[in-house]
Amino acid sequence: MAGLFITFEGGEGSGKSTQIAALKARLQAAKRSVTQTREPGGTALGEAIRELLQHDDAGQGMSAEAELLLFAASRAQHVRELIEPALATDQIVICDRFLDSTTVYQGVARAIDPHSVATINEFAVGPMLPNLTLLIDLPPEIGLARAHKRSGGQLDRMEQESIKFFHAVRQGYLSLAAAHPERFHVLDGNQSIQSLEEQIWAIVAPHL
Amino acid sequence: MAGLFITFEGGEGSGKSTQIAALKARLQAAKRSVTQTREPGGTALGEAIRELLQHDDAGQGMSAEAELLLFAASRAQHVRELIEPALATDQIVICDRFLDSTTVYQGVARAIDPHSVATINEFAVGPMLPNLTLLIDLPPEIGLARAHKRSGGQLDRMEQESIKFFHAVRQGYLSLAAAHPERFHVLDGNQSIQSLEEQIWAIVAPHL
Repeated sequence: MAGLFITFEGGEGSGKSTQIAALKARLQAAKRSVTQTREPGGTALGEAIRELLQHDDAGQGMSAEAELLLFAASRAQHVRELIEPALATDQIVICDRFLDSTTVYQGVARAIDPHSVATINEFAVGPMLPNLTLLIDLPPEIGLARAHKRSGGQLDRMEQESIKFFHAVRQGYLSLAAAHPERFHVLDGNQSIQSLEEQIWAIVAPHL
Repeated sequence: MAGLFITFEGGEGSGKSTQIAALKARLQAAKRSVTQTREPGGTALGEAIRELLQHDDAGQGMSAEAELLLFAASRAQHVRELIEPALATDQIVICDRFLDSTTVYQGVARAIDPHSVATINEFAVGPMLPNLTLLIDLPPEIGLARAHKRSGGQLDRMEQESIKFFHAVRQGYLSLAAAHPERFHVLDGNQSIQSLEEQIWAIVAPHL
């Protein structure tokens, strides 16, 4: 056995949380140790940064550059404090969003120069790339309607963006997946939970 | 009249705060509008980041990479929300620490690759460099004794570093000043407050 680093990516309401819980349960049933985490967050510092990014009044009027650097700061700590040590002890790490989220949300949708995004991402993670990245693809209209329903109408700072932003996010993800076929798997988010779960397991199981 | 961007740099206890207050008073007496600010901080977001960097429990065990990215995030917001708009309305902006602090503290003293530090600094500030950088130079033993006395023995996270760290900081500052003579002025911090104040005024006045 060896460590395995699996990331989930996708737009708002794509069903990442549900599928992460299902995958974790299956892995534990197969007697594997699982570390479940998320970005921004995953460490005390990362969770404090998450609060700034999503809910804090201090985040009002945040520049795209500051936003990118905060995501990167959370990630730098996450890799060194939690992900690397977990993989070193043969854990399976499942992370809800990782560097691809920054490439897409800040790079494509906020139109920050892709070279700057790549350089800062690389500085934050070092050589730590996911073994598998599961992208749950869904038209943003469907995902946002789900997210809206789930939150009872309370949207966080990211969820308040325009539908055009989320279309750019979706296209950004699909391009990224095409550019990195060695680790990306694109999954249709517009299918039953059970069917998606089976599809994910068929991808992960051969790596165990 | 035009905007003027003045930064103060130096180790702990070098007397920056005292000299900033004195310079601000002289500028105001000369009928100039002054915006006084500091890093990390200067905006609501920056002050929240400052708290994480200096006092928050979440900052315990912070990696050097996360630290650098948090300073850069604070700076990116600071430039866009406060410094650029103030200069655009012909204010004199006096800032306690700016990008040179990151070059020295994270680059030299924490031994992060200088190319990464420069790239991230450049991303954070864009073309916004200080017109004048006043470096108050002082042997770290003297500065730390002052800082210790001032705080009544309560040292923040940075101040708890070793004396070797602060010697590296001092040398880093002096090298940086030598590399950028067009904006740096090195001042002897081991002289009377009044004498240092006169020296600073002699440097700033011709720019008004």
